[in-house]
Amino acid sequence: MVRILVNGYGTIGKRVADAVSLQKDFELIGIAKTKPDFEAKLAIEKGYSIFCSIDKNIDLFKKEGLDVGKLEEALDDVDVVIDGTPDGIGAQNKIMYQKIKKKAIFEGGEEADIGVSFVAQCNYDKAINAPYIRCVSCNTTGLCRTLGALQGFGIEKVSATLIRRSADPNDIKTGPINALVPDVEIPSHHAEDVQTVLPISNIMTIAIKAPTTLMHVHSLTVELNEKQNEDTIIDTFKNTTRIRLVNVKDGIKSTAHIMESARDMGRKRGDMYEICIWQDSIKIKGNTLYYLQAIHQESNVVPENIDAVRAMLNLDSRDESIKKTNKSLGII
Amino acid sequence: MVRILVNGYGTIGKRVADAVSLQKDFELIGIAKTKPDFEAKLAIEKGYSIFCSIDKNIDLFKKEGLDVGKLEEALDDVDVVIDGTPDGIGAQNKIMYQKIKKKAIFEGGEEADIGVSFVAQCNYDKAINAPYIRCVSCNTTGLCRTLGALQGFGIEKVSATLIRRSADPNDIKTGPINALVPDVEIPSHHAEDVQTVLPISNIMTIAIKAPTTLMHVHSLTVELNEKQNEDTIIDTFKNTTRIRLVNVKDGIKSTAHIMESARDMGRKRGDMYEICIWQDSIKIKGNTLYYLQAIHQESNVVPENIDAVRAMLNLDSRDESIKKTNKSLGII
Amino acid sequence: MVRILVNGYGTIGKRVADAVSLQKDFELIGIAKTKPDFEAKLAIEKGYSIFCSIDKNIDLFKKEGLDVGKLEEALDDVDVVIDGTPDGIGAQNKIMYQKIKKKAIFEGGEEADIGVSFVAQCNYDKAINAPYIRCVSCNTTGLCRTLGALQGFGIEKVSATLIRRSADPNDIKTGPINALVPDVEIPSHHAEDVQTVLPISNIMTIAIKAPTTLMHVHSLTVELNEKQNEDTIIDTFKNTTRIRLVNVKDGIKSTAHIMESARDMGRKRGDMYEICIWQDSIKIKGNTLYYLQAIHQESNVVPENIDAVRAMLNLDSRDESIKKTNKSLGII
Amino acid sequence: MVRILVNGYGTIGKRVADAVSLQKDFELIGIAKTKPDFEAKLAIEKGYSIFCSIDKNIDLFKKEGLDVGKLEEALDDVDVVIDGTPDGIGAQNKIMYQKIKKKAIFEGGEEADIGVSFVAQCNYDKAINAPYIRCVSCNTTGLCRTLGALQGFGIEKVSATLIRRSADPNDIKTGPINALVPDVEIPSHHAEDVQTVLPISNIMTIAIKAPTTLMHVHSLTVELNEKQNEDTIIDTFKNTTRIRLVNVKDGIKSTAHIMESARDMGRKRGDMYEICIWQDSIKIKGNTLYYLQAIHQESNVVPENIDAVRAMLNLDSRDESIKKTNKSLGII
Repeated sequence: MVRILVNGYGTIGKRVADAVSLQKDFELIGIAKTKPDFEAKLAIEKGYSIFCSIDKNIDLFKKEGLDVGKLEEALDDVDVVIDGTPDGIGAQNKIMYQKIKKKAIFEGGEEADIGVSFVAQCNYDKAINAPYIRCVSCNTTGLCRTLGALQGFGIEKVSATLIRRSADPNDIKTGPINALVPDVEIPSHHAEDVQTVLPISNIMTIAIKAPTTLMHVHSLTVELNEKQNEDTIIDTFKNTTRIRLVNVKDGIKSTAHIMESARDMGRKRGDMYEICIWQDSIKIKGNTLYYLQAIHQESNVVPENIDAVRAMLNLDSRDESIKKTNKSLGII
Repeated sequence: MVRILVNGYGTIGKRVADAVSLQKDFELIGIAKTKPDFEAKLAIEKGYSIFCSIDKNIDLFKKEGLDVGKLEEALDDVDVVIDGTPDGIGAQNKIMYQKIKKKAIFEGGEEADIGVSFVAQCNYDKAINAPYIRCVSCNTTGLCRTLGALQGFGIEKVSATLIRRSADPNDIKTGPINALVPDVEIPSHHAEDVQTVLPISNIMTIAIKAPTTLMHVHSLTVELNEKQNEDTIIDTFKNTTRIRLVNVKDGIKSTAHIMESARDMGRKRGDMYEICIWQDSIKIKGNTLYYLQAIHQESNVVPENIDAVRAMLNLDSRDESIKKTNKSLGII
Repeated sequence: MVRILVNGYGTIGKRVADAVSLQKDFELIGIAKTKPDFEAKLAIEKGYSIFCSIDKNIDLFKKEGLDVGKLEEALDDVDVVIDGTPDGIGAQNKIMYQKIKKKAIFEGGEEADIGVSFVAQCNYDKAINAPYIRCVSCNTTGLCRTLGALQGFGIEKVSATLIRRSADPNDIKTGPINALVPDVEIPSHHAEDVQTVLPISNIMTIAIKAPTTLMHVHSLTVELNEKQNEDTIIDTFKNTTRIRLVNVKDGIKSTAHIMESARDMGRKRGDMYEICIWQDSIKIKGNTLYYLQAIHQESNVVPENIDAVRAMLNLDSRDESIKKTNKSLGII
Repeated sequence: MVRILVNGYGTIGKRVADAVSLQKDFELIGIAKTKPDFEAKLAIEKGYSIFCSIDKNIDLFKKEGLDVGKLEEALDDVDVVIDGTPDGIGAQNKIMYQKIKKKAIFEGGEEADIGVSFVAQCNYDKAINAPYIRCVSCNTTGLCRTLGALQGFGIEKVSATLIRRSADPNDIKTGPINALVPDVEIPSHHAEDVQTVLPISNIMTIAIKAPTTLMHVHSLTVELNEKQNEDTIIDTFKNTTRIRLVNVKDGIKSTAHIMESARDMGRKRGDMYEICIWQDSIKIKGNTLYYLQAIHQESNVVPENIDAVRAMLNLDSRDESIKKTNKSLGII
């Protein structure tokens, strides 16, 4: 049993903690939090041990009747830390993990040099035995999964416009409420980030924020080595793990309908781990392929965090790990 | 086993179907739908039988590989129909149910005279043996649950401003995107609707739509017979079923946080059946009580639909039925 | 000619500067800004002199080719400063204004003790010769204007639910995007703030933020001394300055339609200085009056800032000043 | 004096009517409307004659005290009708205009075969003496203006992702409130529509709706014949009429800031007739040019409607007409 602690219990951290506790080969030692809020109380109800990452806040937990330990003490006892703290804190925490010689997994908000950039189905082997792994961001993971599936056709050039959700559903502070906000830095950072995972030399990404909380949408233009037909592409996506084809003709007309379908499927928290490609949008013109995909930013990197543990401890092959993770999360 | 068919598989219908299938004393014979969309496909995956309520559409289902029966044939075999069809269609369907002598439950979009207006904890006994029951709308149910809890204190006068979500999460057609839309009809229809359930003679409701999809929020002003203290009110709400106290100090600062907590609790579809009152907002000034509550319009009437079956068939007492329903849905 | 400088050139400041420059008895000496952004460039195009309130930023303006002076030097030469700086900065600036013995007007984001709380049509005389005046916030101004109009009927008790726009149109940082956010502090600060202007002893206000940028909407419940009829109330509002009656039957169904009408009227920046009451919503039940009003937060305090100058210098009577200000802004 | 009637007084119609009345060589005979709403009342206040396009509705106007004529009678007396009626109604009206031999201008919601597709700076000469002209849609006009400016460089291939505002500010019925809605028809209709104006053989457009009301944003990828440098492109755009360069470094970070700047400039209704390109986003990589532009859908085709009149009556050259129109609208 791999003993795991999840440091940070926000949007990603709490999902990863739940996913860890579903693995037969993992044991969730506990989670680290800084505040005794409703998420802490619900974690206790689930039976998770909480460790406080800020010593002076332990009293705040006590006042709320929550019994918590100290993070440092808990760390002695774990094999791997999964660090879901806010952007940039992971880098600070890495120093601590290095000192106590613990392997650690970081999220996509950290700089690329913190560890091996990782998307399970794209470069699992590169992460085998790595001390530090960085699960790349939701957008980069989404681009890598579907571009990775197309690599067999020879990718000449990629151009992607990313329409980003501006805030997560539980973030009430961040706007805009009614505006489109372009990132005028072209290319956006995503292009380079994809290249930390996939060997695509010619990639351009442009990002624009929209006032929605549900999902990102990517408009993709991919020049292939030679002309393919649409059915071949559809089959390829169908046969690639963690990609799901959705259809307007089935009533999946928007990001809202994808989220609705995830809720209807009974997915925990209504999560959609798979990158959803609108099958109706797949279009070939000359050598160029066009398609539209949606990314559930709250959950799509959750499977990567699990596979990263198995890779860094060399427990399973890529396919074995993905199979186990998928099964535990209900990904078919 | 009570044999139940759910006619209409939209926001309410699909939730009620799932709730029916969780009851030990009920059997879900099937659901009726008009289109072979993603919701139909997921229903089939769950093992639900589908009956098509529009004969000429049966071929559309066949084309999608879905085997469906005819609604009329299915009805012969059921004890109770729960009608979750769009507003006004229920009234048309009632004629059919009457002809074949089937008991039926309708939703709050139907006119009040379609059956006994019903909120389980408020007037269960009135619905015993009734042939037709109408589970009142989400807003009315929310008002009745919390005002019902206060009736013991003597209610002199109620004034409520309802800030309504303008569309459900999966409704992408309805706006507004960026405006507040008052209902200038004062009182709004909710005041009269509450009075179909509770004997409150002096009630005023004012409704305004806001560009959000998650929950309604009610601002309530209740004049009581005599001054109470806030702790008494808090205790009363705490001890009333299907009411949940939430706190800003726990991080529940908005309707988004309530929804987040429901997802974290592992509720199916992230539903919140309970009316959520912000405990921090409960305020007494003179004889007047003020409080703020939030209503999850997609799910809060689901338990009522289940209890209504038991009431109309006189299967259980109010408390027994509520206990069974609550347990099945994870309401504590 | 009253020599005026407007310190702060945000949402309120830039509107007040324009209004100042429209007055025949005022001269706009200039405006103070901290950054050479597009608003600075457009101010220069209009012929406004800019003074930089942060010395070290003067170079930033120079780099953009904008010639600006120092704020301190400009102040010597003015009769009145109108301070439209962000909340709390006004209080810091007051120390400077006191030192150089300049009269100053502040906005509603400052604490009440900074000067005489002011709504022109409610308490002009109280501000005559005052050294410091505080134009109360948009919401408080809106409440005071319409409640002030009702004072002749005897106000026993006021209860108001304020549905607040969460951000101004040009604020892209502030959310929420999709949630309702109650202020659980009951009463909200507005109740007490109204009392700094009007002698209403029994007033309750409850505030909830909604994801819109256009206007606030207030749902008002006013208990009067004795029963009035609706036409009397309508006439009273009609005959009160800076109140505008709007009608759903004319197509003014929402805050968006009010804004549209202001644009259609040719108002500068599409501003609506008047408090808009939906005439269709005015309802009497017993002694109680109900109505719904909308507040254009960007502009409704602009006329107050102008009248405040005339009051503090004792230049005109209330009615004379309001008449001049209204005429200059196109308020009928 | 060209005698003009504007049929339809919605978002486009009312702006065109105002623009007509600003031209020294045009006379606005009146406008045609179907309902006596606030827009009708404000039109009367401006001195516009109203003609009712639905005979039986004339009484509705009378009831509101508005004196209106019949559309048919007014038409006798005009030289040109500008038809701003809802999509598809223009085609029905064309039959009437043909019968009475009146020249007419239609909007982009009509099919392309209704008349000469027109963007003044791109193909003015093609419309000289044409009986019917169609001012193409806001998105198509936006694409044509900036792609037209680039034609001198030789355009090999265009790929554009259009992030569309979902509803106009005064449209409170249309959603979505919180979702991204792709148009899975690839290419979207815009590609073909651009080709009715510009001879660009290889163009792909992909459209996605976002929950905002202010402006559309286009992400453009343009392969040129040969590598250009960014300054050349910037100069070209700078020297092209009805294109405006905006900068994030000036604080124009979003569509909200563009709208704010138009209000600050004193533009009527806060309109932005020009296509706004973010100068900071202009990027060359190899032969490919990338840039981001924003389109004010309410107003950008207004100048086209004016120029179309001069073209169809062969009154002025392209440059003369554009100069007159620009001057009247404050476009520099």
